[in-house]
Amino acid sequence: MPLPGRFLSSMICRVNGRMMLFDCGEGTQVSLRMLGWGFKQIDMICFTHFHGDHISGLPGLLLTMANAERTEPLMLFGPAGLAKIVGHLCVIAQDLPFKLEFHELNPRTPHIYNEDMLRMDALPLNHRAPCFAYSVALLRRGKFDPERARAQNIPLQLWGPLQRQNDADIVYENKRYTSDMVLGAPRKGLKLVFCTDTRPVAALPDFARDADLLICEGLYGDPEKQQKAAAHMHMTFREAAKIARKANARELWLTHFSPAVPDPWNYLSHATAIFPNSLTGKDRMTKTLKFEE
Amino acid sequence: MPLPGRFLSSMICRVNGRMMLFDCGEGTQVSLRMLGWGFKQIDMICFTHFHGDHISGLPGLLLTMANAERTEPLMLFGPAGLAKIVGHLCVIAQDLPFKLEFHELNPRTPHIYNEDMLRMDALPLNHRAPCFAYSVALLRRGKFDPERARAQNIPLQLWGPLQRQNDADIVYENKRYTSDMVLGAPRKGLKLVFCTDTRPVAALPDFARDADLLICEGLYGDPEKQQKAAAHMHMTFREAAKIARKANARELWLTHFSPAVPDPWNYLSHATAIFPNSLTGKDRMTKTLKFEE
Repeated sequence: MPLPGRFLSSMICRVNGRMMLFDCGEGTQVSLRMLGWGFKQIDMICFTHFHGDHISGLPGLLLTMANAERTEPLMLFGPAGLAKIVGHLCVIAQDLPFKLEFHELNPRTPHIYNEDMLRMDALPLNHRAPCFAYSVALLRRGKFDPERARAQNIPLQLWGPLQRQNDADIVYENKRYTSDMVLGAPRKGLKLVFCTDTRPVAALPDFARDADLLICEGLYGDPEKQQKAAAHMHMTFREAAKIARKANARELWLTHFSPAVPDPWNYLSHATAIFPNSLTGKDRMTKTLKFEE
Repeated sequence: MPLPGRFLSSMICRVNGRMMLFDCGEGTQVSLRMLGWGFKQIDMICFTHFHGDHISGLPGLLLTMANAERTEPLMLFGPAGLAKIVGHLCVIAQDLPFKLEFHELNPRTPHIYNEDMLRMDALPLNHRAPCFAYSVALLRRGKFDPERARAQNIPLQLWGPLQRQNDADIVYENKRYTSDMVLGAPRKGLKLVFCTDTRPVAALPDFARDADLLICEGLYGDPEKQQKAAAHMHMTFREAAKIARKANARELWLTHFSPAVPDPWNYLSHATAIFPNSLTGKDRMTKTLKFEE
């Protein structure tokens, strides 16, 4: 439940001028407004599951988008039942001036979205309701290698197109040129994983493999609440930290604290003992992930 | 739409240990938590209408009440369609451990609730959707008059029961005694009126007659926005102040400001010029109304 200064589940990812929202609990649109990033560039909302604390802010956000005269379609991703549940909620958000495109997730199909260098996957979790973790990966093409280009006598005017697009394939004066002729091996990209609500799942560390940022639930910090966390199909900070360690993540943000825990930071050591680069999340906590030099 | 520091439409009235909520926009449960009055004593939620900004916080509030292990039934009042719309919203608040009792308002029946000295009425308004204003009146019995009781030879042991209950009717030693034998004329009670969203309605001043506090919408303060207010089926501060003056209200609180008006207080003079005791509302603004001495 929302607390003063702690709204419900939501995460927004801004990449190349577009925004993807993950979950939309009550108060999400207030936080979005405080960020000042606008609503216009949100073209996708992904739901982990349909418990109220993860979706209750949707009708209000849709109405605000409608008020801003959005006409572009909005993609919605989520477990089976998405269209039906959003349909019910839209009883108070009717006649939207934009289309909702529903994409119900199939537990056997990890890839949910691909576009140029962006790739999104989903992984079924283990909660009281069907639930998915999401990953956003920004791929990065190899470095342009002028030595190789010169050695292969690639015409100078093709250097630009070949290096800008990873899978460029150009026919020029009856000869075929591809980007792999001028680019080195793909470089490390960026990866963000959002994982809530769930018990630990065997496939999670692989799903979050090498994530630059893993945002993961931890209902309780106190290890003595382990049984209670399990009974509610949630995790403790220690369990989340173990997943981050196994996944070789770079950084872990804990989120989705119990309303009975107003001071999650006081339990952070239970996570850092296992995975040092752990932080307790708070509203509008932001981080810019950058490609390595 | 909700703004940082300005949640959506809601008003709570606490009387004799019970609480009645009017409207439940997004964020209402956060404000309730900040007030610290608890959720337990809310036994009634009255909706003016079903636009998102007046009801979007309901599923979350119901879930929070369920979390607090409420089992007592909850009364809901609102325009026709209430049961259907709440039913849709409850797709994310299923298996509540308490019953919802739906009372759909009939525009021809002003009295909606009576209990002991409490009386609630509703008045149809004029908005884009069927909409009602609500009044809560706390009646006050007349003063006990020992001179009259003595003059009529009323047995001393009946003085207490007759003065405690307004309509007491007691047979004692074959003689009938009623409270009007010992009580003076009913004294002025308390009256609170909540009126949003609407254009001015001819019946409003009578409905709000002598209200101790009239909470009334004013989408815009700037009189130049008069046409825009009317086009959206809302009012300006001046229109609300005219209603307060005609109603002979004691105090007017303006509410339901446009998100394009972050500083409603800068337009307050347009209301006070007509009705001096006007204030612009803000989140968690509270007032204790007391019987006159």
